[in-house]
Amino acid sequence: MNQPSNLEKTLSLVRELDKLKQVVRRNYLLDATRAENTAEHSWHAALSALLLQEFANQPVDINKVITMLLIHDVVEIEAGDTYIYDEVATVDQEERELAAANNLFGMLPEVKGKELLNLWLEFESRQSTEAKFAKAIDRFMPMMANYKSQGKSWLENKVSKTRMLEVNQIIADGSQELWRYTLSMIEDGAKKGWLR
Amino acid sequence: MNQPSNLEKTLSLVRELDKLKQVVRRNYLLDATRAENTAEHSWHAALSALLLQEFANQPVDINKVITMLLIHDVVEIEAGDTYIYDEVATVDQEERELAAANNLFGMLPEVKGKELLNLWLEFESRQSTEAKFAKAIDRFMPMMANYKSQGKSWLENKVSKTRMLEVNQIIADGSQELWRYTLSMIEDGAKKGWLR
Repeated sequence: MNQPSNLEKTLSLVRELDKLKQVVRRNYLLDATRAENTAEHSWHAALSALLLQEFANQPVDINKVITMLLIHDVVEIEAGDTYIYDEVATVDQEERELAAANNLFGMLPEVKGKELLNLWLEFESRQSTEAKFAKAIDRFMPMMANYKSQGKSWLENKVSKTRMLEVNQIIADGSQELWRYTLSMIEDGAKKGWLR
Repeated sequence: MNQPSNLEKTLSLVRELDKLKQVVRRNYLLDATRAENTAEHSWHAALSALLLQEFANQPVDINKVITMLLIHDVVEIEAGDTYIYDEVATVDQEERELAAANNLFGMLPEVKGKELLNLWLEFESRQSTEAKFAKAIDRFMPMMANYKSQGKSWLENKVSKTRMLEVNQIIADGSQELWRYTLSMIEDGAKKGWLR
């Protein structure tokens, strides 16, 4: 029996990735007309990292950051989106996502699959300069969308200011400048009654 | 009066980019449940370029290809999506898109804005190895989606096999291997009556 070729293996993942367009997140587009999906979030985050790179705390390998952001959420195809302010769903999130990463990257020819799995793990562990900046962008994007959409998602999910600060503080590890900007959005959101 | 800071300039483009999520294309997702938007197409294309790089005709600077694909369609925020099989709408497309590129990249601090405008122009002119491969991926993605969704978009727009071959032939300039695969989809689509 013929083994699938590298092209066939790769295209089966390319097709599988289409499903990320159907993973709907809790936050809305900036104009609040509909919820965002994870594929378009990933594009917006990757491109915004490129635009905002000068605000990273330390010089970063921006191509690595971009690649991290392109793949960081593909695990949601199998594991679903976990709302970061949901303390119950986040409990077994790590386990579910690791299994998904192994499955998805495992569809690729071996060398490429391992390379991307390692990059995904590097992002998740938030130790490298690139992972810290990528994570900062990943958190900053929905913050900005939630703030611009009049706190719609925060109100619906009854998010408290304390939890908000706790969850987003890691933005500071990647970019002090974006963290200062985030703090001003949180303060203003609290003042406007969008946060518990 | 204070000039806007580099952070403020950059964030105004980051916010503007959100609108690409509302630009709806003619092709459908692979499962045909809804039409695709340009933001999620851009993510899928950028990540697929990374996965499929070994099938480029010549070695490419993959980071450049990825960046091209992240920005290639942002002009649609102002110029709208032009269906490639529509011979009327494509007439003034170039002009409209160039004006949009100047406006959008012009929102950035000058050096960064020029750099991205030049990269966008390089993609559009399809001369460099990277532009050829990026264009091949850009064309291949909706081909695959249209084929997998039973030619739904081809049937709706009465696309002919001749026009299909004409429009997609540039895939061969970036990847002979993806072009061979494309030809097999076109042949099969024609056999199934999805193409005029």
